[in-house]
Parts: sequence; structure tokens; C-alpha cells
Amino acid sequence: MAISIYWEDLQAGTVRELGTTTVSAEEIKEFAGKYDPQPFHLDEEAGKQSLFGGLCASGWHTCALVMRLTVDNMLRHSSSLGSPGLESLKWLKPVYPGDVLSLKHTILQARPLRKRPDTGIVRSRWDVSNQHGEAVLQMEGYGFFRRREPATPGELAGMDAPAAT
Amino acid sequence: MAISIYWEDLQAGTVRELGTTTVSAEEIKEFAGKYDPQPFHLDEEAGKQSLFGGLCASGWHTCALVMRLTVDNMLRHSSSLGSPGLESLKWLKPVYPGDVLSLKHTILQARPLRKRPDTGIVRSRWDVSNQHGEAVLQMEGYGFFRRREPATPGELAGMDAPAAT
Repeated sequence: MAISIYWEDLQAGTVRELGTTTVSAEEIKEFAGKYDPQPFHLDEEAGKQSLFGGLCASGWHTCALVMRLTVDNMLRHSSSLGSPGLESLKWLKPVYPGDVLSLKHTILQARPLRKRPDTGIVRSRWDVSNQHGEAVLQMEGYGFFRRREPATPGELAGMDAPAAT
Repeated sequence: MAISIYWEDLQAGTVRELGTTTVSAEEIKEFAGKYDPQPFHLDEEAGKQSLFGGLCASGWHTCALVMRLTVDNMLRHSSSLGSPGLESLKWLKPVYPGDVLSLKHTILQARPLRKRPDTGIVRSRWDVSNQHGEAVLQMEGYGFFRRREPATPGELAGMDAPAAT
């Protein structure tokens, strides 16, 4: 797989549409049966009787679907080296069978890493909306990416110290 | 399923051990193939050549395994009404095939909900460690739980306003 996106290509303010995905009742129940067997993720009737008003996907299932879109439409073509985590994750609305989820990815910040001059870190926001234009998930988090060229001593010396990893 | 844990039973400071789980190479590849098809989650050789030093689980897979332990050993017996999200999620170490993960759940805060007197919210921390005693994941987040008895007007009047949902 050819890498076309390195850390240097991930500039703060860049917005990417990372595609759409949909999820069936069968997949919702299969994921929940393995990882989140709560009644409202397993059974239509239990969903109707819950606050969600119907069978809905585990929030972790939605995260997994977002990850798949992110890999297919960005990370697969990038020098991604993994993630140290998220600083927030909001499940804003339930995801129901047949919902069409659209993913928007916004780069909030990109900075060098003092201890790993060949790598940079990127802070991003993921915004997921459904076919009604409602926000269903938002998260902000970090990713490491290899650089095209290592950071120079001058670049590292110019960094603001407080946020350095 | 009999409910034995209501919001009133979830007191700040309570620590629960929520069991252990392990994950095979086959399961790591199956999850990654569906949701996070990056080379280091799919192939031993690619894992060895990565910063992780070997095939390792998607961070989302680890979250899903943590959720399963939380459901089996706590939520299944509770009045859980779902979660609005997390305020942090840290993937601290890779999870490798055969790792034995232990989950500790700590309740950080429990408070009434002004707009839903039959429901309370709980802020918790999940600490996951492997068989070497290394922390591999930590997250903090929220859950809604039905109360045994609705909040009284006096209880709600006594709440600190700023954090009310």
C-alpha cells in the first residue's frame, strides 16, 4: 500500500469527509452478543421499552464503525503509528438499524514530538451524523504519524514546552 | 434478570474487581478485519516490524472486551440506562494474544439529575492491567442508572448547579 499521507500532510484546520456506513439489526445484535449484551442492543422489544425507543447499536459498535471508515478513507494511505487515546467521546444520539452515518474528520492540531524526531502527533475531531442531520457521536483524540523528514533541532527548540509528549 | 444495583447503590469511592479476560490471535485478527484493518492488527509479521513489536489488538477491541466484563459483572445486575460518553480514554500499552486482562472499576462521583428525578448519573474510572501488572488501558466516563426512589425536591434543590446535566 503506497503511503501518501505523512505527518507533514496533516495540517490543523484540514477537514476530510471520510464516507458513510450503515448498520443492520443483525450486525447490531451480533456485536452486542459478543461485547455489550444489554437488552436494548439485543432485542427489538426490549429496545422499544427502553429510553432509546428501539433496538440500537452499542456505542462501542458505533466507535468501531467510525474506525473502519477512518482506516479505509485515511489511515490506510497514511504513515499512522497508532493512537495514545482520546480526550473526549460523546454518544449523542442512539444509532438504529438502517441509519446512514456520515463521518467528518477535522485536524485540530499537529506538532512534533520532542523525544521521537521521526514522528509527529495530531489531535483530531470525529463528527458523526445520521441521515436526519443529527449528530450521533463526537470524539476528539490523538494519533501518531511518521514524518517524511525528521524534525530538525531548530524545530524542536522552537516548540512550546507545556504540551510536549 | 433481577436488578440488585440501583443508582443509590453506586457510591463514590466504591471499587469493584470486574473479572479477567483474554484474547486470542484469531479474535484479534477477526475484530481488526471488520473494524480496524491496520497491518499490525492483522498480521504477526507486520506487527513485528511495527513499533508494537508484534501482532496486537485494536484499541477498540480492548474497549469492547472491557465493556463485556462490565456488563457481565456489573451492568447485567443493574438499572443501567446507557452512557452519554467518556471524558478520557488512554491506550497505555499494546494488548497481545494470550494477554490476561484484569478490570478494576472505581466510582468517582454519583449525583442526581435535575431534569430526570427517577435517574442518577455516575462517573467512573476503568483500569485495565495485564498479567505483568502493567496498565494497558484507563478510561473515565459516565453512566445513567435508574433510582430506587425518585429524587425529592429538597435533594434537587441542594445540588450544586454547575455540573447539572
